[in-house]
Parts: sequence; structure tokens; C-alpha cells
Amino acid sequence: MAKDKGPRRPRAETPKGFRDYFGAEVTERKAMLDKIAEVYHRHGFDPLETSAVETVEALGKFLPDVDRPNEGVFAWQDEDKDWLALRYDLTAPLARVAAQYRNDLASPYRRYAMGPVWRNEKPGPGRFRQFYQCDADTVGSASVAADAEICAMLADALEEVGIPRGDYVVRVNNRKVLNGVMEVAGIFDPADPEKFTHERGIVLRAIDKFDRLGPEGVRALLGAGRKDESGDFTKGAGLSEAQADVVLGFISAKRDSGTATVARLRELAGGSQIGLEGTQELETIAELLAAQGYGPDRITIDPSVVRGLGYYTGPVFEAELTFEILDEKGQKRQFGSVAGGGRYDDLVKRFTGQSVPATGVSIGVDRLLAALRAKGRSQTDTRGPVVVTVMDRDRMAEYQAMAADLRRAGIRAEVYLGNPKNFGNQLKYADKRNSPVAVIQGGDEASRGAVILKDLFLGAKIAAEASHEEWKSQPAQTEVPREDLVAAVRQMLGQG
Amino acid sequence: MAKDKGPRRPRAETPKGFRDYFGAEVTERKAMLDKIAEVYHRHGFDPLETSAVETVEALGKFLPDVDRPNEGVFAWQDEDKDWLALRYDLTAPLARVAAQYRNDLASPYRRYAMGPVWRNEKPGPGRFRQFYQCDADTVGSASVAADAEICAMLADALEEVGIPRGDYVVRVNNRKVLNGVMEVAGIFDPADPEKFTHERGIVLRAIDKFDRLGPEGVRALLGAGRKDESGDFTKGAGLSEAQADVVLGFISAKRDSGTATVARLRELAGGSQIGLEGTQELETIAELLAAQGYGPDRITIDPSVVRGLGYYTGPVFEAELTFEILDEKGQKRQFGSVAGGGRYDDLVKRFTGQSVPATGVSIGVDRLLAALRAKGRSQTDTRGPVVVTVMDRDRMAEYQAMAADLRRAGIRAEVYLGNPKNFGNQLKYADKRNSPVAVIQGGDEASRGAVILKDLFLGAKIAAEASHEEWKSQPAQTEVPREDLVAAVRQMLGQG
Repeated sequence: MAKDKGPRRPRAETPKGFRDYFGAEVTERKAMLDKIAEVYHRHGFDPLETSAVETVEALGKFLPDVDRPNEGVFAWQDEDKDWLALRYDLTAPLARVAAQYRNDLASPYRRYAMGPVWRNEKPGPGRFRQFYQCDADTVGSASVAADAEICAMLADALEEVGIPRGDYVVRVNNRKVLNGVMEVAGIFDPADPEKFTHERGIVLRAIDKFDRLGPEGVRALLGAGRKDESGDFTKGAGLSEAQADVVLGFISAKRDSGTATVARLRELAGGSQIGLEGTQELETIAELLAAQGYGPDRITIDPSVVRGLGYYTGPVFEAELTFEILDEKGQKRQFGSVAGGGRYDDLVKRFTGQSVPATGVSIGVDRLLAALRAKGRSQTDTRGPVVVTVMDRDRMAEYQAMAADLRRAGIRAEVYLGNPKNFGNQLKYADKRNSPVAVIQGGDEASRGAVILKDLFLGAKIAAEASHEEWKSQPAQTEVPREDLVAAVRQMLGQG
Repeated sequence: MAKDKGPRRPRAETPKGFRDYFGAEVTERKAMLDKIAEVYHRHGFDPLETSAVETVEALGKFLPDVDRPNEGVFAWQDEDKDWLALRYDLTAPLARVAAQYRNDLASPYRRYAMGPVWRNEKPGPGRFRQFYQCDADTVGSASVAADAEICAMLADALEEVGIPRGDYVVRVNNRKVLNGVMEVAGIFDPADPEKFTHERGIVLRAIDKFDRLGPEGVRALLGAGRKDESGDFTKGAGLSEAQADVVLGFISAKRDSGTATVARLRELAGGSQIGLEGTQELETIAELLAAQGYGPDRITIDPSVVRGLGYYTGPVFEAELTFEILDEKGQKRQFGSVAGGGRYDDLVKRFTGQSVPATGVSIGVDRLLAALRAKGRSQTDTRGPVVVTVMDRDRMAEYQAMAADLRRAGIRAEVYLGNPKNFGNQLKYADKRNSPVAVIQGGDEASRGAVILKDLFLGAKIAAEASHEEWKSQPAQTEVPREDLVAAVRQMLGQG
């Protein structure tokens, strides 16, 4: 251990933007990840665990998000002068794996991955620099059946973790349709795909803000620009009114059924070859999903879905929770997006030069957990262990035998291991642990082969509500023969 | 995505010393961690998950191992000029947490933690720079009952993951006894504990090598020094023959029973106050464990256990697997250590100035997994999913319905999503996935409402063993009505 001879002690603090997770926070997340993994696994997806560290070269130095080009990664230089970095998502490592093991992996390669990712961003409230992602991707399938499968699996996963049907919707769009609309609007040229990249970036970001800004706000961003409430001005894409009309028509193309939406999109973008292709893909996806019973109450075609990442090349999808919660200011708002993904056919190409079709989804585990908690749907048992108290230090072995008996019966139990001198401290400890039952055996009880069981939940209730007389009668406390310990505790825990 | 306009493509490689884990490697480890967590949890330990990143200040810049002072951490400077680093173990973050939340946590605080840690070491064969640890610690208990509990729990955890009784032993020693022996040998002065630190370091490392070097090798290291086979000279501790005799007597103090070993230790170190204290602690631990039925076949007092880390202050323990495996050179050797720990009363003091008693254990998950694999005791189901093949692209929805039916019955299943043109490729894919059954439905089968099931494991067996006539009769292939699909597959999987 580093010697600490100077007067200055190290600060006991997490680094800024990082946090610790205790007890039920850990088990709740684990239970959720286990359930999602089970869904992915049942669909034939195989787990993959890559290391947290990648070469900057393999990762790309910055996040691939055109929206936020300054977001970075945590990176450092190795002794060999190589730059290493913490992964910022689970897709970049998958692209590396798909390239590195391309001769060994089954193709298509269906894989799932779950684990922390790191972002070197300015931390904010509820915004951490390490958080969990939980991804499923299919690499090597050009078929939109793969996209449909991902959407169906996402719906299954949400229901499996406790979001009932009706409380979520998976919205599906297609970048090709979007490009078709851009082509019709005159800001995409199939012969020179790089042209107008800047303008299209502004248009995509404007569409993404439709929910928040409404049609007029988006129209301003499509045109000259927009001044927000604080007076800040955002430069627009410089589109004409007619061009903006095409784009706005696209955003509001959603109809009641997938068929009707697809028909409307065909009107809007059908004049473009790529637009037509995208529309047909959406139609196939809608048909495949309908045939499997995933109706528009669960998965719906929605032209306003964009997804920020620049790398998507075909279908894009987003899962939204539709119920309302109270935000920090006590105002009702929809919970919003908890998962997203899409088709990205060019990620592996970076390494191999060959285009590899791929599609996948990433679930924002921490947001999804927050949603379940907000709805009170978390099912984790937050009860602490049964605490065997220590009345007589010399009989420690006997107390440990009691705890062992309880554990053998599947009951979580422990012996108090702090200083046993002050018995009140032992009960305070049991309260702090949220312990349901305290086991007590002093010399008297031991001599008649008995133990006292104290129902701590009932005890707390009585302390809060009962009269002095009720309290004195100690209904929360009962003496049982030592050999009945396990059965009596089991009954107190409602497992009788 | 970073544009890759130049001719040079990024290399698709894991950084040196890191690796990827696929499929069963991931599920096997997860199953093991789940089982260990269950044991820890049942004993009243609460999960804690700290972030991978800590401040260098909180972590201490280097590993606290006097043995290898140059081992480092992966560290980098933040934008705010703070130095951050990846955790090198799970104990340093626990010390930080115990200090940071000392007013909120229950005391004693029993916690378990599992996850990757990172070491900036030279990678070697089977030696990676990221690996898993799985720890349980009790912070705030000075009682050796806490140490005894950790040892008992460690034995339980090993049995739970599949190491049968007799194939492991938890060996327990006490640093205080060691210090007592050092005092008797004249290289520890209770009045000036810092004196002879260098010599004691050499002595500890020498004892740690007893298994490998034998008494004569250790004696050389205790004295002037030792030349190894390669001719390299290691400088010794400079002890006299008489001093070395004391130390060697200590190493070989192990007797058949804990009581006899403790008695022998009392002879050797009882002249020292601290030695006597350590001996009494070992005696109490042995008594507590015996009372709970943990005999010397599972947990034994063994004076040759040292544990490398400098920070241990009392009992130390180590779990060893006692069965033999074949090493890389085909030679039999004992598998060796898979877990270790001990009491460290000074780690939290770094932060708060106040000594906090703590004890814990760390299980080397990857080594333990390797041991289970070496013994063929891993129980993971490595079978792939049932693969529904695609004979007719237009009936994709029907194929997906088949897979969905199977999944609803709890059977892992998927539709082939590669290019379906070449049917042979689909069967090759199923083989590569280690798929047990392929489902086939062409136009003929569809018209009579049937599917063909191909038992791929039986098929492979027949292909390897059968005559041409047997092979032609295709016993591995059978046609069933579509509505019997689930029942028939279930039977083929041995779940009938």
C-alpha cells in the first residue's frame, strides 16, 4: 500500500461523473439483464464479451455521432506508444470482432452483449460517464427479415422485463425513405452522395426535434434558422419553403395502419429510386411482423424516427415508453426512448474494405430500470437477511450454527459480527439492514433450549401505531424451541 | 463514423494482452458468478458495484504488492488535470466506499462484488490485462468470527460451483504468528515495526516459494542468497543459520489437526506477545469452524501460507485445488491456488485516519473456470439453436412463425437469415452453430401441411460411422405434421 506519511490524506470520492451502485440497485439491474439475455438467447443469439479496452485505431477516436462531434472517449498512450481507449458503445467492438474473426464465425453472426460503456462527456444530473448497454445484432444478413426479427425481439424483451403491452411502442422508419425524400426535396444526389451532407445533417437533427419543437420550430430549422427561448440562434439548413414542405410532409406521413403509412410514403418518396426501395423494405417488415402477430399497438411504421447516429443505412427503430411520469419539476411527461437501433452496412468495411450487412438494437438499461422504478414495477426483494444476534460472545459457534441452519433451508441469514456489548446497537443494525427477523438467545433461553424471534417489520409497525399497552405486550416477539427455529422463521417470512 | 479515405485501414485486433470471450465462455463464467453470488448473498452479503474508473489518488498509484512494485495501472489525465485509472482490484474501491459512505452504511458492512479488473502488466500466455475477480469482504468487524465466516463461505462457494469436497482445501494462517516468529528470529521489533521491513519482505517471499524451492532453496534465500537454474542470483535476507532455523521450523509446523498445529505454533512464537495473540486467533478460528462441521479436510491451519500482499494484518487464507492436471508440457501438476484473502485493518485508514477492521476473500474466477474445464465439470449446454431453414423466400413469415412456436415452448430457435439460395450453406451454418435440429419445409411439404426434421447430431454420427446403405436410408430425418412440430422437436432434444 502506498505510504501516506504526509499530512494530506487522499479524498474518498468517486471521480466526477461516476457513481456507486448498492444492494438492490445491483440486483435489480442484474435481474433485468438476465431476462433480456434470456430473450436474446432464445432467439438464437450468442453472447460475446469483448474487453473494455480497445485500440483507438479500432474504435475510431471519437463517437460516430455527427450531432455531437466533440464527445470523446477516455484514451491513453500505452508503453508501446499505442493509443488505447475505453469502448464508448458495444457496436464498434462488434465491428472489430466481425472483421477479426470473419473466417471463424458462423454467418450470419447473431450476437448479444451487455456491459458498461464509457463516455468522456460533461457529466450532468442523471447523466453518468459509465453506463450499461445491452445490445443484440445480426451481422451478415442483408434480409430485412433480420430487421423485423430485431424489432420483434425488442418488443418481447420489453414485455419480459415488465413493461406491459400498451405501455411501449417500437417505431420503425427507413433511412432510404428519408434519403428518397431528401432527393425529392433536392438535397440528396444519388450520383454524388457526399454532396449536401452538411444540409442533410441539419435536416436530420431538425426532424429528430419534431416532438419537442413542433412543425413551426422544425420549419424554421429547415429554413434560415431558429432562435430559442434563451435567445440562442441555431443556423438552419437553408431550404426553400417548397423544399421544407416536402420534408414536413414526410414527418407527418404516419397513418393508422402500416399499409396506409407505406402508401403515403410511396406518394412522397416514390419518385426516387432509393426512396422506393426503402418503402418496399418497410412494407416487407410490416408484413412479416403482422404475420407473427406484432400489430401496430406494439410495432408501428413511423416516419418521424431518425436516430442520431450517422452510420445507419436502412431501417431504423426506436422503442418508446408511452406512459407518463412526473419529471423533476413535478410535471407530467412521457417517459420516452429506452432503446434504439437500425441497419448499418458499412461498419465492418472500415477494417476489411468489404461491405458487410448488419442490423441491431441497443437497450438503455439504466433508463429502462428508472422507468420500472417510476411505475413501481421493480420486483426485487429488498428485504435484508435474518440477523442472529449475539447475547453471549462465548456461544458464537452456536449462533453461527443457527444462521447455517437457516441458510441450508434457503433463508438468507447472518450472525451479528460487530461489538456485541450494546444489544440496542444490534437491533439498530438489523433495522438498517432491513432485516425481517432477529433471532435472540440469551443464557435463559439457551438453558431451556429455546430462541426468541422478533418480527422486525411487525415491530416497526407497532412502534409507529400501537398504544403503550399494545406495545408492552410485545406481539412481535415470540419464543420457540431451538429445533423449531427454521420452521418458525419460515412462517414469519410468509414462506410457511 | 471516421472517414477512411486513406489507403491504410485500421487493424481489426484486440489490444495486446486483452481477449474476446465467445458463447459458452461467457455463459459458463456467468453461471459460475451467479452461483458464487448466491452463496455470498445467502450469508447476508450485499452486492456493491463501483465504477471501473477511480481517481489515482483514491486508488494509490501502484499495486499494493511489495513483491512487484513496478506493476502498474492503466491511468490517464482528465481534462480537469485529475489523474484517473482503471481499478486493479476490488479491494481498493471497497476501501474508498467504506470511507466515503461511512456514515450511511450498516456496520459491519458485508459486501460482495464481481467484475473485471485491469493490470498494466506485461501480458504472457494465459495472463491477461483484464480479468474477473469475485470478492466478499466484511468491513467493521474486529472479531475473528468474521474471518472464520469468510473461510466457511469460501468452502461453500467452491462446492457450489462444482468442486467436490476433497478436491480443494482452504489453508489458514495468521500474519501475527508470522510476526511473532520474526520477532523470535530477531527481525521484527514491536517497538519499531518499520525496522527490518526489507528483510521481512525477502523472508515472506521466500516462504511463499516453499512449495516450489523446498527447504534448501528457502534456506538459501533466508541467508546469503540463491542462484537459480538460469544462473540468475537473488540476494537473500542475510539471516544467520539460527535465525533461518526458526523460520524454517515455522514453515513446517503443520500437524495433522488444527489443535496440534496451534500447539506447535505456540511453542515457536509464544515467546512473542504478537505471536501469542495470532496463535489464539487461529485457535478460535479452528474451534468456530469445527463447531460448524468444517473439518481439516476442508479448512486447515497451515503455517506455510503467506499471501503476497503487504497489507494483511491478521488471518490470511488461500484456497487450493488439490487435484492434478496436465500442464502445457503434458506434465502432471497440482492445479494450485484459486482464491485468497485475509484481514487488512489499515486500508480505510488511508482516507480517514481511523483504523477500520476488515477481512475478505477474492476468488480468481478465470482460474477456477479453467479448473472446472480441466476436470470436465463445466455443465453449460453448448448446443446451438434449432435452425429453421428457408426453402422458399416468399414464405419467410411462416418460417418465422415456426421459430416463434418453438421459442414459446422454451426451445431456442432461429430462422436462417443468410442468403437462402444454396441449401447446403444453410446446413453448414446449422453445423457451425452446433445446432441439434434443422427444420425444413419446401413447397411439397407445405402443400401437405408437414415439415421435415433433421437430427443433426445423429446425422453427424451416421455420416462418420454408417455404411452407404445406412446413410441413404436417412434415419436422422423424419417428416411430421406441422402442428406436431414443437412436440417432435422436443422429443429429439430429449425433452419429450
